[in-house]
Amino acid sequence: MATTNVVLVGKKPVMNYVLACLTLFQDGSNEVIVKARGRAISKAVDVVQIVTKRFLTDVKVKKISIDTEQIKNEQTGTVSNVSSMEIQLGK
Amino acid sequence: MATTNVVLVGKKPVMNYVLACLTLFQDGSNEVIVKARGRAISKAVDVVQIVTKRFLTDVKVKKISIDTEQIKNEQTGTVSNVSSMEIQLGK
Repeated sequence: MATTNVVLVGKKPVMNYVLACLTLFQDGSNEVIVKARGRAISKAVDVVQIVTKRFLTDVKVKKISIDTEQIKNEQTGTVSNVSSMEIQLGK
Repeated sequence: MATTNVVLVGKKPVMNYVLACLTLFQDGSNEVIVKARGRAISKAVDVVQIVTKRFLTDVKVKKISIDTEQIKNEQTGTVSNVSSMEIQLGK
């Protein structure tokens, strides 16, 4: 069964997200998408590097895409542009 | 003339690197590579988004690659792994 799952990288330690990816692959996913916004983008790259180089060497980076998302600040109502990245991992 | 130039993103403000990219394209480059390591990766994505969406809409992201580099700390002699990213921009 080909399922796609998303790991959204945020403020937690890198290893939390690495573990999330490993768990998804262990549970039978063939594809995992690692997503991040703003400052977390660097962390997402770290996560992917650790997953593919240290733990699951059969998992490869299939595709990387970057984009801009518009985030509205609920308090001030201002809209700001935030960069986002998606890294597609697959066996 | 097809020339390739590299902009290495570091600790300066985002707009410095945006300007560096714009200058290279203005000077006749067909291809600019934006590189970054560690925490600067998020900033490199910001630079690319600003260049391609706000200033040079004919410039596209051609290729994105991520890797791990081993950096040796000169003081302690320890080697640490740092994520790196290269974004290839072209017309």
